[in-house]
Amino acid sequence: MNLLLLAATEIAAPGLAEVALARYPARAGWWPPQPGRQLLLGLRDGLIGEGVVEHVGEQRARIRFTLDRAPPPALPLTLLLALPRPKMLRRVLRSAAEIGIKHIWLINSSRVEKSYWQSPLLAPPMLDAYLAAGLEQACDTVLPRVELRTRFRPFVEDELPAMTAGSLRLVAHPAAGAPLGPAGTGHVTLAMGPEGGFTDFEIALLGGTGFAACTLGRRVLRVETALPVLAANLFPAGFSNAAADDATCRPPATAHR
Amino acid sequence: MNLLLLAATEIAAPGLAEVALARYPARAGWWPPQPGRQLLLGLRDGLIGEGVVEHVGEQRARIRFTLDRAPPPALPLTLLLALPRPKMLRRVLRSAAEIGIKHIWLINSSRVEKSYWQSPLLAPPMLDAYLAAGLEQACDTVLPRVELRTRFRPFVEDELPAMTAGSLRLVAHPAAGAPLGPAGTGHVTLAMGPEGGFTDFEIALLGGTGFAACTLGRRVLRVETALPVLAANLFPAGFSNAAADDATCRPPATAHR
Repeated sequence: MNLLLLAATEIAAPGLAEVALARYPARAGWWPPQPGRQLLLGLRDGLIGEGVVEHVGEQRARIRFTLDRAPPPALPLTLLLALPRPKMLRRVLRSAAEIGIKHIWLINSSRVEKSYWQSPLLAPPMLDAYLAAGLEQACDTVLPRVELRTRFRPFVEDELPAMTAGSLRLVAHPAAGAPLGPAGTGHVTLAMGPEGGFTDFEIALLGGTGFAACTLGRRVLRVETALPVLAANLFPAGFSNAAADDATCRPPATAHR
Repeated sequence: MNLLLLAATEIAAPGLAEVALARYPARAGWWPPQPGRQLLLGLRDGLIGEGVVEHVGEQRARIRFTLDRAPPPALPLTLLLALPRPKMLRRVLRSAAEIGIKHIWLINSSRVEKSYWQSPLLAPPMLDAYLAAGLEQACDTVLPRVELRTRFRPFVEDELPAMTAGSLRLVAHPAAGAPLGPAGTGHVTLAMGPEGGFTDFEIALLGGTGFAACTLGRRVLRVETALPVLAANLFPAGFSNAAADDATCRPPATAHR
């Protein structure tokens, strides 16, 4: 946790937050906070800034703060992700939030096991928790939007064309011949298949909607490894934009990351 | 599992493997195998090729195979990794093996919790299992070497200089000003800190050994996200070398990945 992400309901007064101690598990080093402790924090979907713990009660910590700067820029990447098995979903959502993806469609595919759609991890509060964990790691505040589509074909044929107009459309497909390179400055919509990949039929449907199949090479990577690799390949500068303000996101020296 | 990684002890005769059914948990779709089932397989530290399941007994499956091609090229990257907490270690080792890293040093740092060094997950058979899982995912056969160093300073001062001669030496450090870019064709040694990062003292010691600090930008990524991003930033071509032989690593169409 590099940034404490404040919900609007935790703002007790302008510049003053009250955070339940139960919000994080007690862990040596950073929680519960000590009075005087400095923290990097941010308001959900808002600015980031610094806080100081004023008082720690039995239930809550009171934190005085100022918010004065924008969160890091978003990655111009929309992710269409065939619903992974629940354990992997949690990690992938957290990673997606970490790297700055702001829009995620969880979609069906014939190799997605039907039971995955019944997972309690798909409940909005659970999704929210994974995404918030990624933001708190990466010092971001802007929650990605997650949408679920349980039918592949109607989604691809009816929604996708208008939704991706003006976007570079790519589908990661280990069997594709075309390698992946930097995407330039535009927006990219990237589709990633389930374990076992999209079927040929699905690749063809996506192709009909303008999605070019491209590969990461001979190594077939798990989604959770492939996503950061793909993001870095598409947006190499998206991960090296620090020179101008490299102190922005650094927690105070006392913080434990 | 995209490739069945055979140990030498599983070779019953030339071209014939006997694999214990207990080796993998029974999972719908790919294990236990059915007679006639085709598999991609490879010999540990050796070639890869195709196999056909000849017979499935109560204890073992018998697989006839031919090995005819080299595993994918290694990533020219040596990883120095401050020992992460055990759960993350498992995932990072698997990812490192997936992306083709062949040499990993697990090192100490003042922000590494001492208890991590007592973890049973550091036992060689456990390390082996995580690495093998990464290879079986990525269709590779060459097991990375993992070495443990529990004392930071003697390692950095006494072993590191000779060990990294001729290698581009980088340390990932969120507070650094220099962004990361493609490494060219040479070998890279990349140091990654623990949660909370290397201390200034450690960064200075690494600097004295020729390690340049570089950053991924404003986002502070977890190790398991940062490693694939760093690898892709350093070696963009390392993940797009498929065009020449893109079928090499594809499991047969019946396989479930």
